Amino acid sequence: MITTDICIIGAGPVGLFAVFETGLLKMRCHLIDALPQIGGQLSEIYPHKPIYDIPGYPSITAQELIDNQLKQIEPFKPTFSLGERVDGLEKQEDGSYIVVGSEGTQIHCQVVVIAGGLGCFEPRKPEIQNLANYEGKQVHYMVKNPENFRDQRIVIAGGGDSALDWTIFLSEVAKEVTLVHRSDSFRGAPDSAEKVYHLAQEGKINLLLSHNLHALNGNGHLESISLSNKNKEEVQVNTDHFIPLYGLSPKLGPIADWGLTIDKNAIEVNTFDYSTNIERIYAIGDINTYPGKLKLILCGYHEAALMAQSAFKYVYPDQKLSFKYTTVNGINAF
Amino acid sequence: MITTDICIIGAGPVGLFAVFETGLLKMRCHLIDALPQIGGQLSEIYPHKPIYDIPGYPSITAQELIDNQLKQIEPFKPTFSLGERVDGLEKQEDGSYIVVGSEGTQIHCQVVVIAGGLGCFEPRKPEIQNLANYEGKQVHYMVKNPENFRDQRIVIAGGGDSALDWTIFLSEVAKEVTLVHRSDSFRGAPDSAEKVYHLAQEGKINLLLSHNLHALNGNGHLESISLSNKNKEEVQVNTDHFIPLYGLSPKLGPIADWGLTIDKNAIEVNTFDYSTNIERIYAIGDINTYPGKLKLILCGYHEAALMAQSAFKYVYPDQKLSFKYTTVNGINAF
Repeated sequence: MITTDICIIGAGPVGLFAVFETGLLKMRCHLIDALPQIGGQLSEIYPHKPIYDIPGYPSITAQELIDNQLKQIEPFKPTFSLGERVDGLEKQEDGSYIVVGSEGTQIHCQVVVIAGGLGCFEPRKPEIQNLANYEGKQVHYMVKNPENFRDQRIVIAGGGDSALDWTIFLSEVAKEVTLVHRSDSFRGAPDSAEKVYHLAQEGKINLLLSHNLHALNGNGHLESISLSNKNKEEVQVNTDHFIPLYGLSPKLGPIADWGLTIDKNAIEVNTFDYSTNIERIYAIGDINTYPGKLKLILCGYHEAALMAQSAFKYVYPDQKLSFKYTTVNGINAF
Repeated sequence: MITTDICIIGAGPVGLFAVFETGLLKMRCHLIDALPQIGGQLSEIYPHKPIYDIPGYPSITAQELIDNQLKQIEPFKPTFSLGERVDGLEKQEDGSYIVVGSEGTQIHCQVVVIAGGLGCFEPRKPEIQNLANYEGKQVHYMVKNPENFRDQRIVIAGGGDSALDWTIFLSEVAKEVTLVHRSDSFRGAPDSAEKVYHLAQEGKINLLLSHNLHALNGNGHLESISLSNKNKEEVQVNTDHFIPLYGLSPKLGPIADWGLTIDKNAIEVNTFDYSTNIERIYAIGDINTYPGKLKLILCGYHEAALMAQSAFKYVYPDQKLSFKYTTVNGINAF
């Protein structure tokens, strides 16, 4: 059992800034996220894309913003459970909560802050025969630990940044990498595509453009993948793993059943502290809604600040909150 | 007459970010500020102090933040009237406004955004005899144009950053600079104080520590200043100008008489768009108040974003607003 003051569901930019704002008020945070790394959509979907509307940054890539935010919260030593979706919420007699993750992690906390962005991301699945037979075994919708593929044969499918980036990275790790894409051009960053073409020319990866997926073959244990090229000829690739990276589609997930007031997949909150209809549960960032709501990172930052002031009373019921500027007091870790 | 879409009162960080958010929606801005330079409190009061709570910046000095924000809004080409307090507001028949500045500048706009921080800053005045006799002539509460002091004799009074910084700067411009401070140590940045001690040692300025101001002397034209040292002995310094830099104290100013709903020196606003009780007038940043209000720069950023969405209808009454992410569309200037 992990014990903390605040359990933050979602380790994207808004969840991370909530660590900072609650940290200033001496509250400790544990973050849980279904994705295998910190950074939410920014690190998962568009790490290399520039963002232009973070105040004070004429331009910053999504991953740089996450990295800077991680540095900003270092003094507050947050802890993380990654690659774990939140499944359950158990109210305790004293008003506190136990948050239960899909891998069995239990987090005891005084306050729950849902900073879940668009929800927990479910992978978009390719249309291919026998997929379900190998899920959870040799089919992987995300790369949690690249070392699992060392000296293995892998087939990656997809044409976006995630497929390109993992192809490049795993070309140094796996024994054999095949990248399959149904089109003849990539949607991902041009310089990543350039690198992939280069690896293919050097014979370091197999690149199958304009190929369609047909079937996974094997007898309970994946052995090969059937594809067809643009002349409708069948191609067979022997492999140990199949990694389809077609992006993630957001779902609110088990949170939808907690009794929160929900409007169009978003959690309704007050604007004075971004609390939900359930005491001790707050929702900040893209996952909440209120009149005038804009799904902007900078708005989530504001919501995190107001939430922190309000959450204080549950963590320190006997103390009076005193508001201090960092310019005057600096960052006092604890 | 200046014609613009939006007149922003206050050129601090929140006013500057309002230029960005309205600029994304193709609205043009003119900013007016009582201070002689862009940056509001940040540039005037604590330019060298680090701020720790700007999301994504573990630490940034106030002036760096302003500089970065100026770079961020460059594509939108805002215009400025500086050193000019807002005095009047004249409603036009078509619903638009003319904002009138203390120097006579007139700004015709569709929307007024008050981003005035703590209000217009009034200088804190020193206790010294005959001060009023020379105000507006040889007594200056801020340095608007350093060139006015070229080859002149000046006496600066104060012990904060402003006094130190101007002493250093003007030591290269004026014929003779005397810095008077009632204490024997400075409140300003240690390295600025170091520079001032150094200039005094080199004989480039006169430094009178532990001296109290007594009287301005002259016959309608300032000729000298009487001081006393810590032994209560009188000292006389001949000078052409007296520049007391004791900081600024905030006042809401003439805005208080516009019919806005005001609570404890702050303007009441809605949280769905940060509009005031008067149509087409918004208030964002430290100058507004609402349940849960925190006087944080990052909260003003959020308020600016929601304001921009709402102000759009007055500038483009016939157009439907479509919300687009900068990550997808970039910054399209106009």
